[in-house]
Amino acid sequence: MSTSSSLSDGSSTRKIPSLPDGYILRSLEENDFNNNLIPVLKTLTTVGDVTKEEFANLYSEWIANSHVYNPLVITNREGKVVASGMLIVESKLIHKCGKVGHIEDIAVDLSEQGKKLGLILIKNLVELARLKNCYKVILDCDAKNTGFYEKCGFSQEGIEMGFRF
Amino acid sequence: MSTSSSLSDGSSTRKIPSLPDGYILRSLEENDFNNNLIPVLKTLTTVGDVTKEEFANLYSEWIANSHVYNPLVITNREGKVVASGMLIVESKLIHKCGKVGHIEDIAVDLSEQGKKLGLILIKNLVELARLKNCYKVILDCDAKNTGFYEKCGFSQEGIEMGFRF
Ligand SMILES: CC(C)(COP(=O)(O)OP(=O)(O)OC[C@H]1O[C@@H](n2cnc3c(N)ncnc32)[C@H](O)[C@@H]1OP(=O)(O)O)[C@@H](O)C(=O)NCCC(=O)NCCS
Ligand SMILES: CC(C)(COP(=O)(O)OP(=O)(O)OC[C@H]1O[C@@H](n2cnc3c(N)ncnc32)[C@H](O)[C@@H]1OP(=O)(O)O)[C@@H](O)C(=O)NCCC(=O)NCCS
Repeated sequence: MSTSSSLSDGSSTRKIPSLPDGYILRSLEENDFNNNLIPVLKTLTTVGDVTKEEFANLYSEWIANSHVYNPLVITNREGKVVASGMLIVESKLIHKCGKVGHIEDIAVDLSEQGKKLGLILIKNLVELARLKNCYKVILDCDAKNTGFYEKCGFSQEGIEMGFRF
Repeated sequence: MSTSSSLSDGSSTRKIPSLPDGYILRSLEENDFNNNLIPVLKTLTTVGDVTKEEFANLYSEWIANSHVYNPLVITNREGKVVASGMLIVESKLIHKCGKVGHIEDIAVDLSEQGKKLGLILIKNLVELARLKNCYKVILDCDAKNTGFYEKCGFSQEGIEMGFRF
């Protein structure tokens, strides 16, 4: 997957727009820690001081549980990470041992927003969930972002409730 | 954990009401497949025909990824499963490599609803998330169930968006 620009092959093009020339969609790599990943995530929320070693531990955990964690990034012409997102695949008992994809932590670099990178990233995460036999994909977002996810083919399903320690 | 009636010890009682006499909270066990687990889940949604072997495979996957999957049940005086719920612990990069607990697939047997079992189950799943260092716990629900989760200490955080294949 690391050299393809999209998960969908020619035969099953599911209307995923093409990336701009030279942009690539691929799995997150450990080296991306020093490749603009943190600034990208800071467009979404606070990241805090994460050391290289802490990231390496987290990355190992994601790799060790690779049928659960599927982090994707988009890089630009310079090979710099400009968008990032996670697909978590949950194996359930309900719905005949069905699988549900959870999309988490979508972020596009401030200087690259509005170029369809967010939409292309989401559509590829959805396609990945389909390839992994999920029967649905869900995500939680602020009311101000529902319009973006509607453009990506999502619709409102329920209410996100939270408890903070 | 399999013999305690609650995750909270005497010193840190976080206002989790006690279970009725003889009721036990414990981790899901493989034998629970034939111990009323499926009828309980049917109060929530369709389960479909899951064979014992399919359940065994799923259970192995949950056990193999036990820092992700944490299924709890409540059993009644006869040892029968009467409530079931899952805590999924997600390891993130944001918030200083923070962990988020996701509560999934909460169900209480029809004949045992209204006895605070749902509330006790949720509060124990939240306590488990706290013990696993989650900074928050989230879940998605129908608008008709927000009142129940508010009684469990949750408040509305966002919108659940979904995409179905
Ligand atoms: C929200 C975000 C992911 C969108 O990515 P993006 O690459 O800027 O957006 P795209 O160019 O792919 O937009 C696709 C379409 O959605 C629309 N759109 C984008 N953000 C929108 C929003 N918040 N509300 C409504 N529509 C929106 C675009 O106008 C575009 O519409 P068009 O096809 O009619 O032109 C990105 O702006 C971002 O990272 N923001 C900060 C972090 C964040 O809020 N993440 C989401 C957390 S839930
Ligand atoms: C929803 C459910 C989990 C609640 O469990 P329960 O054991 O019946 O509920 P409890 O006895 O623990 O209720 C705790 C409190 O919440 C209240 N409550 C229960 N369901 C409620 C609802 N849907 N809306 C508002 N309040 C509710 C109870 O009245 C009680 O309030 P009180 O403390 O003032 O007496 C259970 O009824 C169930 O499994 N329903 C079917 C499956 C389902 O819908 N699951 C949830 C998916 S999001």
